[in-house]
Amino acid sequence: MTLKDLPFSQGEFDRRIAKTRAAMEAAGIDLMFVTDASNQNWLTGYDGWSFYVHQGVLLSMEGDPIWWGRYMDMLGGRRTCWMGDDNILGYADHYVQSTVRHPMQDLAGHIRELGLDKARIGVEMENYYYSAKAHAVLVEELPQAQILDATALVNWQRLIKSDEEIGFIRNAARISEKVVQTAIDRAAPGVRKNDLVADIMHAGITGVDDIWGDYPAIVPLTPSGLDATAAHLTWNGQPMREGEATFFELSGVYRRYHAPLCRTVFLGKPPQDMLEAEKAQIEGIEAGLAAAKAGNRTCDIANAFLGVLAKYGIKREGRMGYPIGLSYPPDWGERTASIRTEDETVLEPGMTFHFMPALWMDTWGLETTETILIRDDGPAEALCDMPRKLFVKN
Amino acid sequence: MTLKDLPFSQGEFDRRIAKTRAAMEAAGIDLMFVTDASNQNWLTGYDGWSFYVHQGVLLSMEGDPIWWGRYMDMLGGRRTCWMGDDNILGYADHYVQSTVRHPMQDLAGHIRELGLDKARIGVEMENYYYSAKAHAVLVEELPQAQILDATALVNWQRLIKSDEEIGFIRNAARISEKVVQTAIDRAAPGVRKNDLVADIMHAGITGVDDIWGDYPAIVPLTPSGLDATAAHLTWNGQPMREGEATFFELSGVYRRYHAPLCRTVFLGKPPQDMLEAEKAQIEGIEAGLAAAKAGNRTCDIANAFLGVLAKYGIKREGRMGYPIGLSYPPDWGERTASIRTEDETVLEPGMTFHFMPALWMDTWGLETTETILIRDDGPAEALCDMPRKLFVKN
Repeated sequence: MTLKDLPFSQGEFDRRIAKTRAAMEAAGIDLMFVTDASNQNWLTGYDGWSFYVHQGVLLSMEGDPIWWGRYMDMLGGRRTCWMGDDNILGYADHYVQSTVRHPMQDLAGHIRELGLDKARIGVEMENYYYSAKAHAVLVEELPQAQILDATALVNWQRLIKSDEEIGFIRNAARISEKVVQTAIDRAAPGVRKNDLVADIMHAGITGVDDIWGDYPAIVPLTPSGLDATAAHLTWNGQPMREGEATFFELSGVYRRYHAPLCRTVFLGKPPQDMLEAEKAQIEGIEAGLAAAKAGNRTCDIANAFLGVLAKYGIKREGRMGYPIGLSYPPDWGERTASIRTEDETVLEPGMTFHFMPALWMDTWGLETTETILIRDDGPAEALCDMPRKLFVKN
Repeated sequence: MTLKDLPFSQGEFDRRIAKTRAAMEAAGIDLMFVTDASNQNWLTGYDGWSFYVHQGVLLSMEGDPIWWGRYMDMLGGRRTCWMGDDNILGYADHYVQSTVRHPMQDLAGHIRELGLDKARIGVEMENYYYSAKAHAVLVEELPQAQILDATALVNWQRLIKSDEEIGFIRNAARISEKVVQTAIDRAAPGVRKNDLVADIMHAGITGVDDIWGDYPAIVPLTPSGLDATAAHLTWNGQPMREGEATFFELSGVYRRYHAPLCRTVFLGKPPQDMLEAEKAQIEGIEAGLAAAKAGNRTCDIANAFLGVLAKYGIKREGRMGYPIGLSYPPDWGERTASIRTEDETVLEPGMTFHFMPALWMDTWGLETTETILIRDDGPAEALCDMPRKLFVKN
């Protein structure tokens, strides 16, 4: 296929395969069945909205990976994966959402043909796209295999980004700046939230010059007032109101790579406790960035932030961030390390996180966040260029 | 909470609970743990982009259902569920994406407290949001329970829509007409695909008058030329070109209810085989609509369509549609009945389907589809008002 438009060089894909195989060897795994949509893309380039049916990548210790999915999606596989057409396999449509057949029966047949039905097979037990039923069928079909939980084995290989990937995330950051600026500019009393979100989506997908916008793995979160005390409500048709804060949790996306960025807008005069929290939050973010240097740990970032909050008498629990990059719905986090006090992942250059020390209080929410890159030396780089403050519009 | 804005009447929710309990009784289930995001919304009203962490609804044979999720999402539960705050439960944040704890340990504790740890518990084995790991943990935590596969038990209760639901789908259909018309109007040689999608998204989310637009469970699918031979590729930054067909697979959404609608646009002069296929497809859709009447079966729709295609010498395999209504990503289908030759679901008034007899050929794709409502008498009603043809722009 001469018409392929692969996002990355072959050297980049080769690097990923080699890295994953080393992790498989260390875990005693002969064959990985990779269902995480982001992991599939990372290993093979596969890109399509077809993850609502069973599909995945088979990676053994030799040869090119195999992408396996619904028959009608083989064409998408041939057009987006770097491997040859022989390594794109499809199952018949009568397996789809059938009550009498299951696609994993077809997959097991391929594993038998590969002579790997007695192998140690790694599966992603904790994944949106590997159902309890899929696992049960695979175990039943391959009684002689040793099926092992290899959740996040591939995700961990994605933690340190290559230069090519960082370039994509920087592109996404240009779009993130545009969407957040759009939200800030358009927010006003009387504006219906859905109309504001429509403008945000439009800004994100048109992108910036040649950096065309892809879809975010999470839709714009834009709650106001009391809704903003809840972390994950989506929009409705209500108008924005004077005297309310609205947080914008948004990300630009370039070829599936994200750079999340959040800011909060207050229409009118903010209450005093919010202004004090703003001060604490911004000082805390600066402390977090300073702690986010190679050799430190993720918990050091969390503790630096919490130390400043404590100074201001604010108590906060929960995660304060996660690695980001390549992602598909329903989550743009990588689900490996976390920025939290109990996580001791050592920071290395090339890691990218959404540092997200949001404050959800009883009557308002305040989100000011950064996508950060761990550098060889010194504090982390905030990849988006956006004033770090509560935006007040009177 | 006086600020709740519930989408449906209490009578409607009561009807759903009663219907589900009857199905549980028939299946010998004492307690359902419902993880499907659409099922959760249908039973309780819960609405938030939080399905990327473990959450669900516990429904036993007495009392109100319980919504259970991440602690920070309890506030969202209190604001969107019809039940009282006591029936909204949250687990601590250190369970989230932890390698040493799992949220299902917390859930099992609640089931024990309810005295249902020896009960017959139904789970949705085949669901995006019930992972293989979640199931393994639940089974381990509740050794005395009998855990049964109740995949789609709730989904089947959703098949026949209430009048309130049909009203929502009709609202969504108004938006679907707008988004498809936007796509047709804006398509032209040289227009970048992402810019076109940005306009489509903007049209959908702004909605029609008071009918504000919600996010679709599938992003706009808009492939052109050879990309349109693959069913599920998303957009890129390439310009549209003279001599190519582009299909638009879109849906307006009103408060999570969908009315998918697809049309195809050809820029220039279509090839003769495409025009012949268009004729067959449209005549086949008419035959399908005539067969889509109460008392007939889903396979009758499929066979009516395929009969016309055969007359024109066109062979087609695979599904030709599925029930639609309430949905969350990654799929807007309900995953119960299918419009296909082997499916014998009897049609009843109030059922709604996306009748989707798309044709994906070697060098082009042609999608012309309808959201249809089964009526008391006569052929199905197409809920969108949109000319049924290949749109040719010279």
